[in-house]
Amino acid sequence: MAEVGYGDVGLYGLAVMGQNFALNMASHGFKVVVCNRSPAKVDTTVKRATDEGITTLTGVKSPKDFVAALSKPRKVILLVMAGKPVDDTIAQLAEHMEEGDLIVDGGNEWFPNSLRRSKELEPKKIMFMGMGISGGEEGARNGPSLMPGGPKVGYDMMEPILTKCAAQIGEEPCTTYCGEIGSGNYIKMVHNGIEYGDMQLIAEAYAVMKQIVGLDNDKMSAHFAEWNKGDLASYLIQITADILKKKDDKTDDGSYVVDKILDKTGMKGTGRWTVQEAAEQSVPAPTIAAALDTRFLSGRKDERVAASLLLKGPSEVPSVAHEQIMEDLQAALYAAKICSYAQGLCLIKAASDKNSWNVDLGECCRIWRGGCIIRSVQLDHMKAAFVKDPTLKNLMIDPDFAASLNQRQAAWRRIVTLCIASGIPCPAFCASLNYFDSYRTKNLPANLTQAQRDFFGAHTFERTDMEGSHHVEWTDDHKKIDGIEERTWGNL
Amino acid sequence: MAEVGYGDVGLYGLAVMGQNFALNMASHGFKVVVCNRSPAKVDTTVKRATDEGITTLTGVKSPKDFVAALSKPRKVILLVMAGKPVDDTIAQLAEHMEEGDLIVDGGNEWFPNSLRRSKELEPKKIMFMGMGISGGEEGARNGPSLMPGGPKVGYDMMEPILTKCAAQIGEEPCTTYCGEIGSGNYIKMVHNGIEYGDMQLIAEAYAVMKQIVGLDNDKMSAHFAEWNKGDLASYLIQITADILKKKDDKTDDGSYVVDKILDKTGMKGTGRWTVQEAAEQSVPAPTIAAALDTRFLSGRKDERVAASLLLKGPSEVPSVAHEQIMEDLQAALYAAKICSYAQGLCLIKAASDKNSWNVDLGECCRIWRGGCIIRSVQLDHMKAAFVKDPTLKNLMIDPDFAASLNQRQAAWRRIVTLCIASGIPCPAFCASLNYFDSYRTKNLPANLTQAQRDFFGAHTFERTDMEGSHHVEWTDDHKKIDGIEERTWGNL
Repeated sequence: MAEVGYGDVGLYGLAVMGQNFALNMASHGFKVVVCNRSPAKVDTTVKRATDEGITTLTGVKSPKDFVAALSKPRKVILLVMAGKPVDDTIAQLAEHMEEGDLIVDGGNEWFPNSLRRSKELEPKKIMFMGMGISGGEEGARNGPSLMPGGPKVGYDMMEPILTKCAAQIGEEPCTTYCGEIGSGNYIKMVHNGIEYGDMQLIAEAYAVMKQIVGLDNDKMSAHFAEWNKGDLASYLIQITADILKKKDDKTDDGSYVVDKILDKTGMKGTGRWTVQEAAEQSVPAPTIAAALDTRFLSGRKDERVAASLLLKGPSEVPSVAHEQIMEDLQAALYAAKICSYAQGLCLIKAASDKNSWNVDLGECCRIWRGGCIIRSVQLDHMKAAFVKDPTLKNLMIDPDFAASLNQRQAAWRRIVTLCIASGIPCPAFCASLNYFDSYRTKNLPANLTQAQRDFFGAHTFERTDMEGSHHVEWTDDHKKIDGIEERTWGNL
Repeated sequence: MAEVGYGDVGLYGLAVMGQNFALNMASHGFKVVVCNRSPAKVDTTVKRATDEGITTLTGVKSPKDFVAALSKPRKVILLVMAGKPVDDTIAQLAEHMEEGDLIVDGGNEWFPNSLRRSKELEPKKIMFMGMGISGGEEGARNGPSLMPGGPKVGYDMMEPILTKCAAQIGEEPCTTYCGEIGSGNYIKMVHNGIEYGDMQLIAEAYAVMKQIVGLDNDKMSAHFAEWNKGDLASYLIQITADILKKKDDKTDDGSYVVDKILDKTGMKGTGRWTVQEAAEQSVPAPTIAAALDTRFLSGRKDERVAASLLLKGPSEVPSVAHEQIMEDLQAALYAAKICSYAQGLCLIKAASDKNSWNVDLGECCRIWRGGCIIRSVQLDHMKAAFVKDPTLKNLMIDPDFAASLNQRQAAWRRIVTLCIASGIPCPAFCASLNYFDSYRTKNLPANLTQAQRDFFGAHTFERTDMEGSHHVEWTDDHKKIDGIEERTWGNL
């Protein structure tokens, strides 16, 4: 039983993430008090601490004792399941907490829930933060990327703990003050959306290597390992190299695990939210959407198997030198990835502007450099782009990234046309390239779309040569065009 | 002043849509009572009826008189702005209405609002329907496509009016009982999403004709007019032919209006909802999403102009015979369109299953054949596909459509590769083709994605050769892989 006012910080919710983050904090010397709805996990956590020789972790078994065991102003981190369990836990804890105390929710929460909770705690003057934590179980224990959003004074209370417990890149902790409440959840959500995009792009590159080039798993692994030394260097590329060469230990025929895995992808919701939010904020995020759609389609395995017998691909496929394909593929993967990050960062910017969060995109890139799933060398350069020009409208037009994309666009087009001509789906490669091509197109055919809208709905349009909004009587014979009985647009 | 109990049906909300639908009903002999918040429009509507020689339309100027003027059980159609105005109007009217009366909201409403309103009216036993109306102002007057969803007994009360006032294709009215409350709004929402897709595909075809083939407006118009005689025959193709040849009457240099229109596309929200709902229901709708994203990008005109100076397209473009391109383009447009409809219909099916609406997809196609913006000859064939097989999982695998797609896929691939190689954005053509290719792919590279998820998050996976869910210890040296300080995946 912890003495009253003992703890520097409390952690409530002791699933593996919670246990690990509690051990992380305690291993840095912070006095951590842990609690959980079912008390057995309190014992587990205390035992793990003892086993690791950690002496500053104490367990308690009731919300009341938990709150009492913390020094004032109290700091409590929640790691319970997102949604109702968070509300229930807050209600139980807030009962015992006081003005100036702080609750930090570390779950993957839908950001409006954090806004609501913050408001609900206002009458009691208890502060509330939503903090994205990326890096999975390992990251939670050894150093995650931490994305806290809430009152600045709350962040200041947490800062000594967060900066110590986050992943470190050199001297820099992978955490920062993201902005007001909601911003931390949002940045984590987009991080996950970008992660979906990265994974889908890698999957498409894998399909090209395997199905067009015809490489075996060891060769593919070697290519990814090689790419990991260049400008694609990243955690996801590295684990792909490791995955591809992993032998299956459930069979003894020398086969590889990856070839035994069913092609149905699960998901947890943050990718979906990112796509829905992008639509909400009028920000295109087609690469992330393509990744999400592919997860949906992957789940319809039975339908795909049936359709594969009915719908045809090309009868002959182009013949391209394999060395050329592999060289192009690396360039295409890089370019498509940059475009996907551009989309995610634009989305954060739009939400930040709308909610007055003042998110610093350079800081986002900086704190993603370590601890999290999308950590990569490129994030250093992305950070630099926003440091150099904090008003940068789109990552693609940073001079360095623009040069990189321009240099690779021909290779990228060759990969996409090769996939299309070969019947290999490449939705994310395509989505990024169309994003790039649309963004660099001064005059889109949207003039025709506006004309159509004015034709059938009198929605009016702007002109290139005059001010104001304009409408045209498109046809003298309106009845004829819109005449329903006549079906002038074709016969049955 | 209408006598008590005079009217067959009331219409509240007299913007142009409301006026026109009131005149439509009255011109079919129904006794229509109209009312509006600002009374001036009541006079306008009555005058329009008088001018047209319509004798069965009466105006009143208060909600109380309005309700009193209707025969029981009362039937009221609302055509006020979606959102709060609908709630305010319902509150004012319901005060005077009784058990067994019916309110029909004809606005483009977000379907959960209709569910909520239906529930709110339950204690008073007033029935509520949400009815999608498509066809714009002209359709409202001359015959729209009507998509009513709500209690069947309410539909039965309205049926004589709706079947008379809807667009007619031969003997068949373009309306049906869609299902319970929410279904009508949903079907209209998806209709609009499909409309976004159709418009974007046509815009991309226009860009190919103009920028790659180099046709002038009159030639493009002639091509669309020609296409309108074949399997692309549809209202949108027809108006495109009309738009392209329309001369600008604000200048006298012989120029065309379409060339003066700024390439920034407006939007009203239903396309956005469709994309968000598709994500919500785990249904891929990439063509509709591509159309929405392009509208977003069209709005960023200043950014595009700036980016056009920095980001490069191909230095040389492929040379293809213009006749071949035009022939391929027609095939590509047809195939891409079918895939977009497949997406929209799958979305309706998913929502119908989830909400137990029992929507008949064949009926959806049937009632879209006339009156609405997406009316086309193909909808006859789509209807037939679902009549033939009501359990059809995807429009693409109907034997006739599968044959059509298979026949056109080579041409479609040629158009997409031509656009990609030429630097002309074709996001919707690409999205449809990747949808087609993903759907017909028995084994997607999603096995790698699942492996990655298991690697970093222990999310487990299914195997192709064993039951159950599986997890692998991917690396003996977990610390090394996840070690944050080491950044084994690359150096700065």
